[in-house]
Amino acid sequence: MKRDTPQQNGEPPRAEIITIGNEVLSGRTVNTNAAFIASELERAGVSVAWVTTVGDVSSHMRDAFLRAWERATVVIATGGLGPTHDDVTRSVFCEVFSRGLRRDEAVLQNIRSLFSARGRQVTPRNEEQALVPEGTEVLQNRWGTAPGIHWTENGKHWFMLPGVPREMQNLMTHEVLPRLRGLPGARIVVRRELHVVGVPESYLMDQIADIHGIEHVASLPDSKGEVCLRVTVTAGSNDEACARCARIVSDLEARLGDAIYGYDGDTLEVVVGRLLAERNMTIAVAESCTGGLVTSRLTDVPGSSRYLVSAVVAYANTAKTDFLGVPLSTLTAYGAVSAETAAAMASGIRARSQTDLGVAVTGIAGPGGGSPEKPVGLVYLAVADDEGVEVVRELFGDDRLLTKARAAETALALVRKRLLRKTGNPVRQEKLKDREGNRAT
Amino acid sequence: MKRDTPQQNGEPPRAEIITIGNEVLSGRTVNTNAAFIASELERAGVSVAWVTTVGDVSSHMRDAFLRAWERATVVIATGGLGPTHDDVTRSVFCEVFSRGLRRDEAVLQNIRSLFSARGRQVTPRNEEQALVPEGTEVLQNRWGTAPGIHWTENGKHWFMLPGVPREMQNLMTHEVLPRLRGLPGARIVVRRELHVVGVPESYLMDQIADIHGIEHVASLPDSKGEVCLRVTVTAGSNDEACARCARIVSDLEARLGDAIYGYDGDTLEVVVGRLLAERNMTIAVAESCTGGLVTSRLTDVPGSSRYLVSAVVAYANTAKTDFLGVPLSTLTAYGAVSAETAAAMASGIRARSQTDLGVAVTGIAGPGGGSPEKPVGLVYLAVADDEGVEVVRELFGDDRLLTKARAAETALALVRKRLLRKTGNPVRQEKLKDREGNRAT
Repeated sequence: MKRDTPQQNGEPPRAEIITIGNEVLSGRTVNTNAAFIASELERAGVSVAWVTTVGDVSSHMRDAFLRAWERATVVIATGGLGPTHDDVTRSVFCEVFSRGLRRDEAVLQNIRSLFSARGRQVTPRNEEQALVPEGTEVLQNRWGTAPGIHWTENGKHWFMLPGVPREMQNLMTHEVLPRLRGLPGARIVVRRELHVVGVPESYLMDQIADIHGIEHVASLPDSKGEVCLRVTVTAGSNDEACARCARIVSDLEARLGDAIYGYDGDTLEVVVGRLLAERNMTIAVAESCTGGLVTSRLTDVPGSSRYLVSAVVAYANTAKTDFLGVPLSTLTAYGAVSAETAAAMASGIRARSQTDLGVAVTGIAGPGGGSPEKPVGLVYLAVADDEGVEVVRELFGDDRLLTKARAAETALALVRKRLLRKTGNPVRQEKLKDREGNRAT
Repeated sequence: MKRDTPQQNGEPPRAEIITIGNEVLSGRTVNTNAAFIASELERAGVSVAWVTTVGDVSSHMRDAFLRAWERATVVIATGGLGPTHDDVTRSVFCEVFSRGLRRDEAVLQNIRSLFSARGRQVTPRNEEQALVPEGTEVLQNRWGTAPGIHWTENGKHWFMLPGVPREMQNLMTHEVLPRLRGLPGARIVVRRELHVVGVPESYLMDQIADIHGIEHVASLPDSKGEVCLRVTVTAGSNDEACARCARIVSDLEARLGDAIYGYDGDTLEVVVGRLLAERNMTIAVAESCTGGLVTSRLTDVPGSSRYLVSAVVAYANTAKTDFLGVPLSTLTAYGAVSAETAAAMASGIRARSQTDLGVAVTGIAGPGGGSPEKPVGLVYLAVADDEGVEVVRELFGDDRLLTKARAAETALALVRKRLLRKTGNPVRQEKLKDREGNRAT
């Protein structure tokens, strides 16, 4: 059976992703393929309107294929092409679109050479992967044995890709996207993310309420306590989209200044690391309730040994006195979770490690250990440098792991703020230059 | 409009998940909600046959709702219930199933008390969330403002849940699952995961090749270097499924012994913590290349302050001498990444923290710092107790974050092995008893 619906001209092309596989249905595998495909398609000006997941059941696949071909301009089906899937995807495609199979010599050659490179014997079952639907274009898969398939009719495009993420991703980038450039009605989408820290979300929203083009403000309850502003611009051309995006970003920068700590893939540990490296400064960390998380984030960055000297996780009070030199009198008078102890921890780790900066976190991660005066989620953070110590008090709620995450984020933000105090924000300057020079995101 | 299709008796119930939201469609959010829901439904004997994702577009939602109600026994729709989504999900539901809205006083009360607990003002927009479709059951959401909705007719079930993962998960577990127990034709699926560490995967597979019922062995390239054995059994009754599952697990335990460190949700930090607490023992950690990750994992466990005393991240050599007492001569003669330094770090942190155990990690996480003799990925791990020091050498490859993760996992495994040496594996004994007594997973 075959359905041809002429493309609605003038309307933007819409895509459907069909992911096939029992693993995704049962929840054993999270559908990361669909997210990757959607992001890639957006770069070609095609937005995804439907994602459909079905198992290896012919009747369900048939139904999904027919509907997708009816309603979408671009269909991308992944999964079900491997030798273990009984070739369901391919046979359903042939049935729905009334076509036979032919053996493709180039695919067969690819299968044989991949097997011989791994020192393995090709079985007849493996060779069956060289059977492709008649009248379709083969997308050579240099990363695995199952080829991609492309078929186009009446301005519509159908792709079938293997479900192995690496193979699918390479085929999307190298084979699918080039075939989708310049579709009639395609709208280019340009996105930029601005990471803001230390500004309450409601205040932030008031500040930027009149700036248009900010699609989405994410400050999810399970996030680390920062706000992510996402600028999305859709336009007919890449140049136009980039120029408009840059204007909105400039407006936001003018309003928010240093509250913006980074762009797109930036993390606070990367930004803090860059600031320390640029200033040839060193840091040491004293952690209690974050239990090593601040330091673990700092050391996620390659080259962090240039500026990170040491850290102490002082969980027990004895560790706070022995390793950090917190006076026993401070602990007795104010308690382990107090501004005074946080300050002593920051000064102590800085002095003992002979670093430019010392940063400290002490708090009650919970679930136990809280009291009416000092509830679970109470955290004191301190940063010490040659000019003194700054202490901040926060309340992060009663979820242990969230409190760890938010306290670590706040500690890094505090260090960044301290580093920016005297010398401005070179990260932002650099990023601004970068954006002027190269407008594509 | 309303469609009622009587349930096909005898056939197993099939579910459809509808996830609603532009974030998922565009690939900015990976659809982890669908995976969670599918896993939960399986525990009630309901398998998911379709997952459909649509944006906040009424016509697409309408179409998806109608098809789902036609073909599925259980429909779970998530997302689109928050105040920022213009209540699209709710209004489409009312349109498709021809019903009006009523104000639910209990929901309104919940919204008001959540807002007042956070010290925030309730807006009329927030109060709109208390409008629920007539003739439906409200599932109170104690974790957020948007309630869940349940509607059942002709043996079919329709649920609408908020898209915020934590709220959705709690509603699934506490409200949805209890309403789905004992559906006609349900096939109970029982799964059990066994976590194995320290056995090469190929050797493991030889050991267990003749045991049936092991569906899947996962040792993913992005994992922490352990192997997860997943036993899956499907049967008509919970008792039968549990009994068959228990037999397979017993067989695996007989073959693998202490290589199994835990079951299902167990992590090494939980297991190590349990072993330490049971023995009334304390531990301290000295980290170099793991940068605090070992300690951060240990402190993810509530109550870890009972056994974790302190930790030092000694990134610089001076920190290794100053905080851990590693002799300068050891560093000079053998280098910072050596068996000798690892041993000195473990003994040093143990002595200075006066703990029963000391564990240490030193290595080259990369990308820089490697040499032909000491390549990137080389890691030495040591554990010290009253009987001496044990050192292990590992090579973890050239990915910085993977090396951190695998080294941390190996360090925890080393501690576990040391703790088990003399006194057997109480974790396993306890788990065995637990399984006998309470067969449901």
